[in-house]
Amino acid sequence: MPSEFELIARHFTRGTTHTTLGVGDDAALIAPGPGCELVISSDMLVEGTHFLADTDPQDLGWKTLAVNVSDLAAMGARPRWATLALALPEADEAWIAAFARGFFACAAEFGIDLIGGDTTRGPRNFCVGIFGEVAAGTALRRSGTKPGDEIWISGRPGRAALGLAHLQGRMQLDEARRADCIAALQRPQPRVALGLALQGLATAAIDVSDGLLADLGHVLAASGVAARLQIAVLPAPTFEREAWLAGGDDYELVFTSPVARHAQIAALSLALDLPLTRIGVIEAGPTGQIDLRDASGAKIQIDHPGYDHFGA
Amino acid sequence: MPSEFELIARHFTRGTTHTTLGVGDDAALIAPGPGCELVISSDMLVEGTHFLADTDPQDLGWKTLAVNVSDLAAMGARPRWATLALALPEADEAWIAAFARGFFACAAEFGIDLIGGDTTRGPRNFCVGIFGEVAAGTALRRSGTKPGDEIWISGRPGRAALGLAHLQGRMQLDEARRADCIAALQRPQPRVALGLALQGLATAAIDVSDGLLADLGHVLAASGVAARLQIAVLPAPTFEREAWLAGGDDYELVFTSPVARHAQIAALSLALDLPLTRIGVIEAGPTGQIDLRDASGAKIQIDHPGYDHFGA
Repeated sequence: MPSEFELIARHFTRGTTHTTLGVGDDAALIAPGPGCELVISSDMLVEGTHFLADTDPQDLGWKTLAVNVSDLAAMGARPRWATLALALPEADEAWIAAFARGFFACAAEFGIDLIGGDTTRGPRNFCVGIFGEVAAGTALRRSGTKPGDEIWISGRPGRAALGLAHLQGRMQLDEARRADCIAALQRPQPRVALGLALQGLATAAIDVSDGLLADLGHVLAASGVAARLQIAVLPAPTFEREAWLAGGDDYELVFTSPVARHAQIAALSLALDLPLTRIGVIEAGPTGQIDLRDASGAKIQIDHPGYDHFGA
Repeated sequence: MPSEFELIARHFTRGTTHTTLGVGDDAALIAPGPGCELVISSDMLVEGTHFLADTDPQDLGWKTLAVNVSDLAAMGARPRWATLALALPEADEAWIAAFARGFFACAAEFGIDLIGGDTTRGPRNFCVGIFGEVAAGTALRRSGTKPGDEIWISGRPGRAALGLAHLQGRMQLDEARRADCIAALQRPQPRVALGLALQGLATAAIDVSDGLLADLGHVLAASGVAARLQIAVLPAPTFEREAWLAGGDDYELVFTSPVARHAQIAALSLALDLPLTRIGVIEAGPTGQIDLRDASGAKIQIDHPGYDHFGA
């Protein structure tokens, strides 16, 4: 069986383009640009909780990095470096090679150097650290929105939840939508270009990993405000509606922006070729409350507001 | 059961002293000092591989951070920030509270802000990202040693391996040494002060996590050199000798330094109140070879050169 060090050398050591010292020492060395703050996040993906045992390893490698990149997108940061710590039950080299291909495909797409990590034996678990840069003072936080701001969402949320339901046999997607929804689940596209473009436009942002309502709720809590949502494009079928509102794993961005910037946001949608949909408005309170209406103005009740790993 | 977000708020959100934005957003923000490089490492601890299921959670919290701090010590860096991603099979709040106490005790000891992370459900797994600063160009790497340099080790290695063997019933430590060896295993003391003091003195350094011979081997490989070890203080009993040479988990530093600095290293030992023992000398080659002798000059063979998570 190849050793831990051979595995690292073979599959996880590639050239870097903007790193002082990468994989292979006790730690890596990087030099953030002058005037930049460093933006740091870390997400852990666990078999059985975040992915199924039979997930294609190349897709999984992509997604493992992509969900972390998404956290930086939500801060308006440019991703630059990553670490990868992984636990595997055995050294299945074909599986590891495929995982590494997917991981590095995502790294290449977003200009990220892999600079370090750890390889160990255990139940399958991947933990990424992601590091990016923003000009000091310009990061998009959850806490910056105010009553009157418009609420926007990127892309077409709910697709990942529909893809998962299809794969688990809980529903049957027609062929026209199947590939699209499964791709949204397995190869999420973090909205890095959008996050960068929102600097100076958005007052708050978050990425949708636990579901729109749950993640919007974090913004409301951090900003001490409420929201009124009225969503013209909300699907009618119950399952699709719940996926749209509460399905996790889409990694779209929810953000807020003053009404005066409405036209700029609309223009950004065209420039990025990415749907940006106004779904509501920030209100004064009570903190965290979401008043949800359908297109006709009638109240909507939702059973599952979002995903919580230890919730009841 | 408390939610993921309640657990984070209750046990893992504390004040920070040198962080722009800490726990609670999509990512954290830090501003490394001017002229500094950022030093980054990540280690994952898995139940059954790195610790036993019945390990005291407060000790485990300390060790989880300490082994990461040790990687920065080996670079001569000052640790400043950390992230913690953790998977737990259930939300046992007393266990989590004790773990957090140990983790933050270590953080306070070394002046580290916890700035982010992740909490999820799964087989018990802790993944720390650790971030520190060095003045640009001054980090201690594995690759800098040359033939003629002396090889040194800090502290009294092998104690953690003896403590583990005692706890596992593979040997019986007398009462005089028991507490000391178990403490070395459960509450390792990363050699941060030594690493900082070695800047400008040492030509290469590594921390001993897999065992002296294995970790010294990484230095030799990175520097393209060999070593001749002759260790006056090597214990005679076979088990103790193997623990000294190949026992992991001590987190002492092995480092190299030109002979001309011998007196400075000896003085440093006094200043830090920490044993620093010259154990050999770097030779020209063949790369990676360790010629190991006892005090009389006779060759020593070792069965287990070190720990490899996927080795045969």
